[in-house]
Formats: sequence, structure tokens, C-alpha cells
Amino acid sequence: MSVQTADAVSVNGNGHAPLDTKSLLEKIAALEARVEALEESPAQDIEDRLAMVVFSGDLDKAIASLIIATGAAAMGMEVSMFYTFWGLSVVKKKKSYDQKNILEKGFTAMLPAGTGGLGLSQMNFFGAGAKIIRKLMNDHEVASVEELFEMAQELGVRMVVCEMSRELLGVHDDELIDGLELGGVATFLGDAGSAKAALFI
Amino acid sequence: MSVQTADAVSVNGNGHAPLDTKSLLEKIAALEARVEALEESPAQDIEDRLAMVVFSGDLDKAIASLIIATGAAAMGMEVSMFYTFWGLSVVKKKKSYDQKNILEKGFTAMLPAGTGGLGLSQMNFFGAGAKIIRKLMNDHEVASVEELFEMAQELGVRMVVCEMSRELLGVHDDELIDGLELGGVATFLGDAGSAKAALFI
Amino acid sequence: MSVQTADAVSVNGNGHAPLDTKSLLEKIAALEARVEALEESPAQDIEDRLAMVVFSGDLDKAIASLIIATGAAAMGMEVSMFYTFWGLSVVKKKKSYDQKNILEKGFTAMLPAGTGGLGLSQMNFFGAGAKIIRKLMNDHEVASVEELFEMAQELGVRMVVCEMSRELLGVHDDELIDGLELGGVATFLGDAGSAKAALFI
Repeated sequence: MSVQTADAVSVNGNGHAPLDTKSLLEKIAALEARVEALEESPAQDIEDRLAMVVFSGDLDKAIASLIIATGAAAMGMEVSMFYTFWGLSVVKKKKSYDQKNILEKGFTAMLPAGTGGLGLSQMNFFGAGAKIIRKLMNDHEVASVEELFEMAQELGVRMVVCEMSRELLGVHDDELIDGLELGGVATFLGDAGSAKAALFI
Repeated sequence: MSVQTADAVSVNGNGHAPLDTKSLLEKIAALEARVEALEESPAQDIEDRLAMVVFSGDLDKAIASLIIATGAAAMGMEVSMFYTFWGLSVVKKKKSYDQKNILEKGFTAMLPAGTGGLGLSQMNFFGAGAKIIRKLMNDHEVASVEELFEMAQELGVRMVVCEMSRELLGVHDDELIDGLELGGVATFLGDAGSAKAALFI
Repeated sequence: MSVQTADAVSVNGNGHAPLDTKSLLEKIAALEARVEALEESPAQDIEDRLAMVVFSGDLDKAIASLIIATGAAAMGMEVSMFYTFWGLSVVKKKKSYDQKNILEKGFTAMLPAGTGGLGLSQMNFFGAGAKIIRKLMNDHEVASVEELFEMAQELGVRMVVCEMSRELLGVHDDELIDGLELGGVATFLGDAGSAKAALFI
């Protein structure tokens, strides 16, 4: 057997002496250490996921974020949307003035409730631009922003509302679209840290 | 033999008893499975790539996106730019009114064609701000936005125009800069999913 | 010998015939090559890091960026902020008009120096909106933007000022907050390329 082993080693080019088990085990142990380092590297946190902060309350940016979200979900990616600051307007379904202080009532009056009241980031012209974009999307058979939002929810897109923004702007739970989670910056960072891409919109 | 194996393992193979082949093969097979899991992890989709959505039609953001793009390309990264919504103004070279309906003619009239007509996101003052930024860049020998765009193309930056935005805004092919690709959200997501970083500008 | 090897391999070490050393070494070498490919893949550049470009000079976006930064730093992530263009207003502590040309003096006069002068991206109403947000944050015991900035610095967030923007806008060193680095697009790309997520704000 030692001769056979020696043959085997000699083919590997390093002479006739048999390679001892110790050397084999050392090679394997070295590999194990390298594989463990790879397994523990930050890259292994990455999943097939896309995370978005929707900070803006503009109709055009809401549409862009939802087209990206539904596209990604349709391609099989996990998608997380984190609605914060003005983005809360996108996920409001109605306005409520009950049990709000004067500042909260002011914000409620001035901020749109739901996608119907959103304007454009450019060329809005007091709402005319937003109406034109809506008409164009309809003419070209692109799903409306409300349809896109529903599609996103149906495709399992995780919809998170920033708890702190909700409190600052005095938005009550009954003003929000159904099926939303409440979360904080840690929620977003958890998803962004395991995402292939994170966008701030 | 089982005793010998135990000995061999206990001394990490530096005794004289041979470790049995079965144990060695099992160790190697376990490592192979772990390496395969690493090879199939989402992290392995990542390339040395940067992907950007240019949603904005503002001159300052166009400049920022192109400085980042040319910088990344010069550092050897693959770079993809995806021009969508108002970002189409950055990649238009002229205006054409032929065979457009009234809405498309309106957008053509009101949106800038090419970087010469772009304004600033802040401090624009009906174009004065944009002129000042251009003068400052010239005074400081920073490449102009047109030069940056050409540099980006020469450095092999992938320039993709959002097909849907092009249709919605009624932009015709002859209005676009040469050398652009047409693509959809899947094109962007393909590149963003394999990018080290993705930016929404 | 070939029969023995075939036996050994076919039964994966559970027969009595010894597998030859050559086969074991080949298996290990193949694994080593795969592990090396993994170690050299772009994914291994990724660290537990978040990188942000702060392009905007809006108070609300400055707040959002700092809440994300301090949250990430508190969770143990490395965080880098790259202040460019209008974002320089966030990291200015005062205005200085000495040794500036007329354009630089103009920018100095018109751009805010420090967070006290920042407006909102929406609903600013010549500063009233910004005051309301500040009051709301105070009422809800959320740290102010100045406190958030200090917290970020104390948590070790890397704060980089874009050298080129500083020159273009004629911002002098004595106008900047203490403890900032100067850097270029390569500085940002270095951090973004090793970050789990990069955001353009």
C-alpha cells in the first residue's frame, strides 16, 4: 500500500515519499478556516432583496418607486418600502382631525391624504402636471399609482411606515392604508443591510 | 481500526496510525457542501459595478451623477445609468414636434432638450443659477456636463433610456443622444442587483 | 490499483480499499481553487458599512440622513457621509466673506451657513415649515439636527466634505464645522464600494 500511495503522490510531482495523514488533515483544516471566514463575512448577510426609503411625497417619485418595487417583486426579489416624512402622504387613505393639536391639524390640512392629492416634483403647475401624468399613464395603459400600490401589496412587498414620522406629523392609524407595518430606522437598516440595493427616493 | 482512527484524530494525524479514508472523504464532502452554499449565495451575484437611476432633470444632479459615473469608470468599475422621467431631458439633443399629439407637444415645449436647458434643483432663479454653476465649473477647470457625458460614454458607461418614460413623454428616437440603449425596469434591476452600490438621483 | 481507487471512490470510503493520496489531494486542490475564487470575488469587499451622499441642503433631508446615520452607527455599522453641492450648507458653521470673489460672496450670502438656516424640501413657506418641524421634534423629544450631527460625530461617523464642491462654492476651511475630512468622489466610491448600502440624499 505504501508503494501505491507513493505512486499517487509522485504523480502529483513531489517525490516518492508517502504524504502522511497529518499533512492531509492540515490542508483540510486550513480550508475549513478559510470557508468559515467566508461564511462569517458581511457579504453573507446579503439576500435577493431591494430596500427603498420613500421620503418624498411627490406623485412622480411615488410612481417610480412602485414601478421599481413591483418590477423587482415580479422578478422574485424580496422588496421592502419604508415610508417616512412626506412619503406618509402616499400611504394615507383619508384625513382625520379628531384628537389632534393645532400643529397636527395644520399638517393634516396641508398634506395630501392618499395618492389622489399628490403633486409632481417638477412641472406640477398646481396639480395640472399631476393630472396630465395620470392621463398619459391611462392612455398608455400603464397601471395607475393606486393599482401599482395594490399590486405591490399583492406581490408581498413589505410596506413599513416610519413610526417617528407618523408621530411628528400627527398621523393616526385610521388615516393609513390597511396592511402596513409600523417600524423605525432599525427596521429599514435591517432590510437595507441584507439588500442587494437600497434606494432613497 | 476504529481505535487507530480515534488515535489519529486525537493527535491530529501526527501519530503513525493512518486516519481512515472514509473520515477524510467525509471532511472533504462537508467542505464541498459549504463551498457550494457560498457559491450559490446572493452575494456572488455582486460585481464591481455601480448602478444609478437618474430620475431628476436638474442640472446639478446631472452633474453629480456624471462625476460619480466617470469617477467610478476611471477606477475600473462597470457603471450603468438608467435615465427615467425628468432625467430624459439630460439625454435629449433636440426637440421635435412632428407626429406628436397635443400633450406630447406640450411636454416637448416645456421640458428642456439637452443639458443646455437644465436648471438647478435649488437656487435656479430662472436659469441664472445654472449659468453661474457652469461659469464656476469653467473657472475651476472642471469638465462641463456635456464633456462629462461624452467622457462617460468613452469610458464605456452603459447609458439606458427608460422605454416607458420615453413613451409617456412622447420622446422620439431622433430627439435622443446617439449611443443610448432602450430598456425597462428589469434592465435597471439586473444591473442594480449585481452592483456594489445603487443610487437614485 | 486502478480497481482499488475506483472501488474506494465508488463507495465513498466505506469499503476497505484505501483511496489513494492523489485523489484526496486532487479533491482538496479543487476545493482550494473554489475557495480562492470566492475570496477574490467582489462580494468580499463588502463590510458592515453604510455610505451616504448628502447632496441636498434641505433641513428635512439633513435630519433623515442623520437619523439613518446615527441609527446605523448605534447598531455597530461603519458609516460614511459625503457632503457635496448644497449639502455643504449642513456642515458650515458660519459665513466668511474675506478673500472671496464676487460669485463666491454671492453664494456665501445666499446659501445657509449651518443647520439653523436650512429650509424644507416641501412646505417650507419661507422658513415657517422648518420652524414647525423643529418645534415638533422638540415636543416629541427627538434630538435636534445639531444634536444628531454631534451624536453622529461622537459615534465615529466619518464626515467627508467634497473638495470640488468646496472650491466651486468658494467655501473656506474656517467656515466648516470642526472634525471633517476633505475628499473627492474616489473617497465616496471607496466607501460605497465596500458598503452594504449606499444612499443618495
